[in-house]
Amino acid sequence: MVSTPLHPLDPATAEELEYAVHIVRESLPGVELHFKVAGLEEPPKKEMVKFLEAEHAGRPVSAPNRWIFMMYYIKKNPRLFECIVDITAGEIIHHAELPRTQHAPVDRIELNEAAQVALADQGVKKELERLQIGDNVVVLDPWDYGKDDEYEQRRLTQIFFYKRNPKNNSPDSNHYAFPLDFMAIVDLIEMRVIKICHLPLGAEAITTKHTGARKVQPEYDHTLQSKPARTSLRPLIVTQPEGASFKLTGNLVEWEKWRFRVGFNWREGMILHDVTFDGRPVLFRISLSEMFVPYGDPRDPLHRKGAFDLGNVGAGVTANDLSLGCDCLGLIAYLSGHVINARGEVVEKKNCVCIHEVDAGIQWKHTNHRTGKASVVRKRQLQLQTIITVANYEYIFYYILDQSGEIEFETRATGILSTTPIDPENTDKVPFATRVGNGVLAPYHQHIFNLRIDPAIDSYTNNTVSFVDSVPMPRDRVLNPYGTGYITEETKVTRSSSQQTDPSKARIFKIFNPNKINPVSLSPVGYKLIPINSQALLADGNSWHYRRSHFAEAPIWVTKYKDRELFPAGDYTNQGDGSDGIRNWVARNDNVENEDIVLWHTYTFTHNPRPEDFPIMPAESVRVALKPYSFFNYNPTMDVPPSNQGFNKSTAYDPTLQVGADGVGRDAGPKHAASGGEGESCCPKL
Amino acid sequence: MVSTPLHPLDPATAEELEYAVHIVRESLPGVELHFKVAGLEEPPKKEMVKFLEAEHAGRPVSAPNRWIFMMYYIKKNPRLFECIVDITAGEIIHHAELPRTQHAPVDRIELNEAAQVALADQGVKKELERLQIGDNVVVLDPWDYGKDDEYEQRRLTQIFFYKRNPKNNSPDSNHYAFPLDFMAIVDLIEMRVIKICHLPLGAEAITTKHTGARKVQPEYDHTLQSKPARTSLRPLIVTQPEGASFKLTGNLVEWEKWRFRVGFNWREGMILHDVTFDGRPVLFRISLSEMFVPYGDPRDPLHRKGAFDLGNVGAGVTANDLSLGCDCLGLIAYLSGHVINARGEVVEKKNCVCIHEVDAGIQWKHTNHRTGKASVVRKRQLQLQTIITVANYEYIFYYILDQSGEIEFETRATGILSTTPIDPENTDKVPFATRVGNGVLAPYHQHIFNLRIDPAIDSYTNNTVSFVDSVPMPRDRVLNPYGTGYITEETKVTRSSSQQTDPSKARIFKIFNPNKINPVSLSPVGYKLIPINSQALLADGNSWHYRRSHFAEAPIWVTKYKDRELFPAGDYTNQGDGSDGIRNWVARNDNVENEDIVLWHTYTFTHNPRPEDFPIMPAESVRVALKPYSFFNYNPTMDVPPSNQGFNKSTAYDPTLQVGADGVGRDAGPKHAASGGEGESCCPKL
Repeated sequence: MVSTPLHPLDPATAEELEYAVHIVRESLPGVELHFKVAGLEEPPKKEMVKFLEAEHAGRPVSAPNRWIFMMYYIKKNPRLFECIVDITAGEIIHHAELPRTQHAPVDRIELNEAAQVALADQGVKKELERLQIGDNVVVLDPWDYGKDDEYEQRRLTQIFFYKRNPKNNSPDSNHYAFPLDFMAIVDLIEMRVIKICHLPLGAEAITTKHTGARKVQPEYDHTLQSKPARTSLRPLIVTQPEGASFKLTGNLVEWEKWRFRVGFNWREGMILHDVTFDGRPVLFRISLSEMFVPYGDPRDPLHRKGAFDLGNVGAGVTANDLSLGCDCLGLIAYLSGHVINARGEVVEKKNCVCIHEVDAGIQWKHTNHRTGKASVVRKRQLQLQTIITVANYEYIFYYILDQSGEIEFETRATGILSTTPIDPENTDKVPFATRVGNGVLAPYHQHIFNLRIDPAIDSYTNNTVSFVDSVPMPRDRVLNPYGTGYITEETKVTRSSSQQTDPSKARIFKIFNPNKINPVSLSPVGYKLIPINSQALLADGNSWHYRRSHFAEAPIWVTKYKDRELFPAGDYTNQGDGSDGIRNWVARNDNVENEDIVLWHTYTFTHNPRPEDFPIMPAESVRVALKPYSFFNYNPTMDVPPSNQGFNKSTAYDPTLQVGADGVGRDAGPKHAASGGEGESCCPKL
Repeated sequence: MVSTPLHPLDPATAEELEYAVHIVRESLPGVELHFKVAGLEEPPKKEMVKFLEAEHAGRPVSAPNRWIFMMYYIKKNPRLFECIVDITAGEIIHHAELPRTQHAPVDRIELNEAAQVALADQGVKKELERLQIGDNVVVLDPWDYGKDDEYEQRRLTQIFFYKRNPKNNSPDSNHYAFPLDFMAIVDLIEMRVIKICHLPLGAEAITTKHTGARKVQPEYDHTLQSKPARTSLRPLIVTQPEGASFKLTGNLVEWEKWRFRVGFNWREGMILHDVTFDGRPVLFRISLSEMFVPYGDPRDPLHRKGAFDLGNVGAGVTANDLSLGCDCLGLIAYLSGHVINARGEVVEKKNCVCIHEVDAGIQWKHTNHRTGKASVVRKRQLQLQTIITVANYEYIFYYILDQSGEIEFETRATGILSTTPIDPENTDKVPFATRVGNGVLAPYHQHIFNLRIDPAIDSYTNNTVSFVDSVPMPRDRVLNPYGTGYITEETKVTRSSSQQTDPSKARIFKIFNPNKINPVSLSPVGYKLIPINSQALLADGNSWHYRRSHFAEAPIWVTKYKDRELFPAGDYTNQGDGSDGIRNWVARNDNVENEDIVLWHTYTFTHNPRPEDFPIMPAESVRVALKPYSFFNYNPTMDVPPSNQGFNKSTAYDPTLQVGADGVGRDAGPKHAASGGEGESCCPKL
């Protein structure tokens, strides 16, 4: 039924999702369904590799059927199902009811309903009367429920309560500056409040003293700020008068020597498929596979704050509309995707990926002191960006490719801290949290990410991983007489396992093709992963945080490829017990030498809030880098045009045109004065 | 005699240097001098602080006298002197002859003379005849001499021999692709070759087999490339139609809430002085203090390759002229500096620092899912860049400031690998080097940097350093019943010492003012250093590499401030024995709590070359970050104007205007065709 010819790796289209929902509905006549998620089920790798090899060789090949994966409940019922619909054949090819221990992701419609139920609850009303909120509007933050009981199988949400800034009572005020001192747990099937808890108001769990009135906090929304925005910042404009250097054909991107396809689904959001450089395969697939945000606040009931933002919510479902001029600067191309909502309606994720070029300074330079001749080439990059909003937090993810064959994945964390109240008169040291406002406490937490790398170094199926350490060379009268020598030691990963990073050895992880030798270095062609040396999960080994997040145990994992093994904390993370996931996969003790392998990199932001992170957090960012490592015979940027004024058209600073940092003596013009009035608001309403 | 009123921290002017040279010459009538270096001797900190406090308070204050530091030899003589000339008073206030164990930095004039001497040497001529170089021009690389003998006191240089590419015999060919198999040592006082050594041609020191002819290597210089540059890259132009947001007055920079002075001298190159944010002191001074490049090749005579690029040569002396459109993109301001040459002549280092604004993506964002309202602010940065050329290598250094109070120092390494020959027929594994061309070996090496941070957190004289670890909270029935808790542990550095980094604890180093408490967090106001977790020196503890580079032992050092303690490997690193330096300073066991302190951060590139690093190396980069840490009561970027199209003027990608990555079907225009002809050459002749 697909009207346009799609590539097997193209994301599910609106009509594909509609058709799949239709087929599922028809299969269950008269049953009211509560849909959860749906997206492309990619073809089995065997088929996909056959297709890609033929495609690259220009051989005719028939595309595999298009499949859609879906999760749904019977409405107001704990019965959860998953299925795969073959929309080419128009039939359901996989259908299963899941055990009660497994729960589908949350959805906004369901959580909004839970919030209304909570507001109408008598117990909640009593709490609000106690707090004398008055006309001040209460704001609810429903969270996915952090499992803490082996036998709890009900579908639940935990709701935290805040109020709008009393000074403006605006729906866009920063309610996180006004946390209330209780929370409620709602049963999502019975749709009723089953428990109300008071929040601790001091460093110790036993304190429950009523909070006093708070001083007003600053607002992040420009329209609510008391002072206009600063006028000292001058516009900085990026233009490409001759157009972009990249070419976008559907979801196929070609830029310089790179060629790849951009995928998208409800869970992982942006994905890169079949990444090749100069016609040579580098990656079969790369994606952010999971993210876990365990909070370090030990106090009941806050110990349940531990969210799997991909598995419990979805990076595709929460992807922002990146409208022009707001989220990217320069000449921008956009891609959109599609998901479904609880009613089974298709929702467009408009402009959820933006693509643009960036100048990242100097790629290489040398000045020959003998002749005074300088050669400079700039580092042009292609950036693909997606931004997700998970309740209070924003995450910005970029794939960054450059002309030297590097691929970086950048993670930025911004947005608003999830806060809890503290007695303003309390001045005790709180060892697990930071005061970010008067009566406002921001607990320590970690953001633990996993990047799934399915490599294809000159082969879709035959790669090996090793780690390479730089270590001193033993002193030797003949071979190292002065003790200056050092060498590299390479250790092959032969069995599926987890591995440690080690900056003290400058350890890098090499992904190579043992069947192809670089004629210059005489080593196998490969890429190296420069890992992020970060901290593992801090929760203890008996905690639910630990049980539920296998992948947070170690920074590096190597597994043998297996279809449908995409999510290292398991397919069903919401209220999950952690019985599924990557720990089990490595336990197979598979051979991973000269095999079809997957490399998984776990990295962490340990986020101990600063007052500077409030009311909104300056982005924290880290980058994972994949770099050619004997993949090329020499620097592949040799033929990039030189950096010179004819090409770059820079301008010289003219003191007579400038003003002081305070902007005095210069009319900033309307765009400066604008402190973000509605007309200036960045992105369209969702 | 100074004609224009200078700030005490302004770099030495041309006339100041001329005048100081004049005074020194007059003090030694009839003696021929070989000048080495000269630059501003900054006032003692006590005086400087008094001056700055008065300056910031707007109180009248008289500037301290201007001083020039200088090193010189008596010509063709081992006698080395240092002096300080008070050019305000017109007198020499410090004058000392140095012991024979200490040597001044190398200089280009002297090294060129040594190269001529070597070429004229009979022994060298014999070697060249043996190699049948013919008309092919030989290129010499004189290096600072790596000390390996307790009793060697002669001033020496070690010279490595290469030849031009026989295919073009061009002075700009990459001679590092054609290493010859011998080297020579020249006595710089007698100016004669005292030793010729054959280089090992295999993995073991004993091999000395003659090298065969080489296949031609690719050239990095566009004018020498066989194919024209690619035409697929479209221009990317950065403009600031309303001018820059920064203001440059002499060497004083004001941008957004930042205010600081840019210093420059022969040794450290670019320096930032008196850095304040919103009128509050943050740093008294920050500079790259030293760089050591020890090679891991154990084979005699290559074990002597270990260069102190600042102490032995100078980051100011080697600073590039950053001409418009070549090294920076956008609206660029430049600063120039001055040094002297061996003849005592002033040499202008034109445009040695460039200053411009950069858009670094998103500073913060939040989308309120309740209203659909998104607020975005972009991350504008001010970048100050300097680039140095030390023989084969280039280093790019940036100070990067942003609106949230962050200061980053970025280090990029590029340029050309220092190569040595290997028998092309030899295919043995070389554990300490990489083959980067046929018959061309690039030894492993480390680049070890030290950033000197002289903090002034709301006080020029009373700061403390601590390190903060994130660690699990012990399980406790009441305080941590679920094992989810984690806390921070802070350890004060009370005595001058070295400290370790520890990513497994997410360790950060806090510089704080114990006398001022942040009213929101209730912690002292401070900044945190996010260290680079890298590798220490790999050479063994009895090696000369180790003896000479104290600062490479540990990543973090804290010392009590003392005037003239600027260089952690000692003032005289060239052929130095390592008896001076930071190890001695921490040994004083000074109190560093609530004191005038200095924080030193050592970080390393362990560079094991790839074939992709040849013939020229794609820049490797790392960043050290200093971030506010309870310095502000809330995010200081709240009033930065919102990111919107009215301000950013982005453009949407138009498929009809684009071309394929191959550039087919589009006339690239002359600027694309230009593969760097002389007219297009980036920088002026030195």
